[in-house]
Amino acid sequence: MHKTYSLRNSRAPTASELQAPPPPPSTTKSRFFGRASLASTFRKNAAGNFGPELARKLSQLIKTEKGVLRAMEVVANERRAAARQLSLWGAENDEDVSDVTDKLGVLLFELGELQDQFIDKYDQYRISMKSIRNIEASVQPSRDRKDKITDEIAHLKYKDPTSTKIPVLEQELVRAEAESLVAEAQLSNITREKLKTSYNYQFDSMRELAEKFALIAGYGKALLELLDDSPVTPGEARPAYDGYDASRQIIMDCEAALEAWTLDIAAVKPTLSFHQTVDDVYEELDDEIEEQEPEPEPEQEQELEEEPPLDEEDEEIIEDDVEQLHPEEHEQDVVDDVEEHHHDENNTTNPQF
Amino acid sequence: MHKTYSLRNSRAPTASELQAPPPPPSTTKSRFFGRASLASTFRKNAAGNFGPELARKLSQLIKTEKGVLRAMEVVANERRAAARQLSLWGAENDEDVSDVTDKLGVLLFELGELQDQFIDKYDQYRISMKSIRNIEASVQPSRDRKDKITDEIAHLKYKDPTSTKIPVLEQELVRAEAESLVAEAQLSNITREKLKTSYNYQFDSMRELAEKFALIAGYGKALLELLDDSPVTPGEARPAYDGYDASRQIIMDCEAALEAWTLDIAAVKPTLSFHQTVDDVYEELDDEIEEQEPEPEPEQEQELEEEPPLDEEDEEIIEDDVEQLHPEEHEQDVVDDVEEHHHDENNTTNPQF
Repeated sequence: MHKTYSLRNSRAPTASELQAPPPPPSTTKSRFFGRASLASTFRKNAAGNFGPELARKLSQLIKTEKGVLRAMEVVANERRAAARQLSLWGAENDEDVSDVTDKLGVLLFELGELQDQFIDKYDQYRISMKSIRNIEASVQPSRDRKDKITDEIAHLKYKDPTSTKIPVLEQELVRAEAESLVAEAQLSNITREKLKTSYNYQFDSMRELAEKFALIAGYGKALLELLDDSPVTPGEARPAYDGYDASRQIIMDCEAALEAWTLDIAAVKPTLSFHQTVDDVYEELDDEIEEQEPEPEPEQEQELEEEPPLDEEDEEIIEDDVEQLHPEEHEQDVVDDVEEHHHDENNTTNPQF
Repeated sequence: MHKTYSLRNSRAPTASELQAPPPPPSTTKSRFFGRASLASTFRKNAAGNFGPELARKLSQLIKTEKGVLRAMEVVANERRAAARQLSLWGAENDEDVSDVTDKLGVLLFELGELQDQFIDKYDQYRISMKSIRNIEASVQPSRDRKDKITDEIAHLKYKDPTSTKIPVLEQELVRAEAESLVAEAQLSNITREKLKTSYNYQFDSMRELAEKFALIAGYGKALLELLDDSPVTPGEARPAYDGYDASRQIIMDCEAALEAWTLDIAAVKPTLSFHQTVDDVYEELDDEIEEQEPEPEPEQEQELEEEPPLDEEDEEIIEDDVEQLHPEEHEQDVVDDVEEHHHDENNTTNPQF
């Protein structure tokens, strides 16, 4: 495993990139000009050049996220325009093509609407990150003051060790240090709190958007099945189309599914392999089975789903690594944290903002 | 149910829009200038003004999709830039913030990479739609010719009913009609075939992207749990961070999950309510149970998942509607089609392109 899992070092291609032959690069990608928009490049540089030193990096991040938001807005608008175009084109075709494209248009338009809602949520994340930037900017002066007094004392001690100014400055330094201690504690607390809530909110919004996109794609595939694509010979008439009710029902089912969706019934779940010994693994599995048993009538309401298979070799390597580097007590703590968190997730639907 | 489920009529707000209070609109949204980019507006109008009449609407759709692609490319690039910025900002913070932001950066960067791959696939859909536009453009001349000859005959019959030109033109018309018949059959066949494969491919790519996004969001939330966000008092030191292995393992688990993902193990599944009688419902459920039984050791490898609950009232309304409007034989055909399709989906991983 020579991969570093860090953005600060260069990154080897993943196995899936090497394995699955991807389609050729999109013909619409710009090859000659820069890869980001001019406006966002300017915004980022400007944010990095002004303001207190400490807050510059985060200002750049916040400006970059503004670029993400603006670009997502264009995607959402273009998506809705494409949905309308599809519906308009289909209207001039035969009945089945006309109905299916119109309904597809409804689904694709909904993608744009959902993305538009996601943009508003993403902006909340960005605004929340701004409060970290603000505390960073306000901590800078107290750091500067402390440094300045320390320098002054050192300078005086070298030039005139008997100066009466030294004790005065030393008292001032004690006060400055006290202020700085408070400021640094505030910075540490607010950074962690806001970082956690901001990204939790972003990830929750992303899960919602992603699962709803996946749902819509599924219903879209069902709609396509209504198209009669068996080839006809010249002069042969196609059987009359009578899928209007079916297509309407697919849209209604889709709408019901989208409306009923909450984080509690999210289908995509990450599987974490935080296990060290065989006992840990079995204990956890027992718990899981116990939790599942009380649920009523599993034959009708539930579906069996396979967990994504984990490569056995990889798991061994992971476990070896962990055993080498990791004291066992802490590992357990982390597992507890993550589990606790997962339970929280199931109980609360709205992120606390 | 006064909604029309069509893009060609205006649309009432959905219940979920009325019910869940959304956040305020994003501050980054452009309020004064048009909502689409200038370039794409121009492209769309240009595509609508030239070329054969029949192919204009689809040309506009294809141009609009080009706008979608370009905008998505900007999003992907900005996302990756934001991921790098987050990692750079975090590097100057305490160890735990530094490690978590760096690993978050890896996950967010992966979002950009996945979206980049999706762009290439979306372009394949667009290229496939172009073949419908091309057949439309090539069918136009044969329609025009037929119309022209018909007009000429009508004109001659009015002006000079005994003209010897009439039988010649009538023979020409028969030939033109034969050619037109073939052309229309080709148009009908190719339109349906390509429409179906194009959108099936797009929806499959979308499902992949969406489920992978949802996975990454889940792992991202696990990463955030490593942040120690308990507030400290001024002067108090935070306990030393030792989550390096846990964070590395989350990334490795995420990578493994992303690599193992295929359409076969897609978690988000649409639920269709294409049932008329109680017997239909039970027959289907029996089939499903039989299919699932042969799988080995369900306690260890599988997880019980609840299907998203369907509102009972909605289902009743839907069933009433269907019974009123729908002959039973056809309804069954559609159900069969959709089922067949779902089986296909499970067998083939790659769309046939």
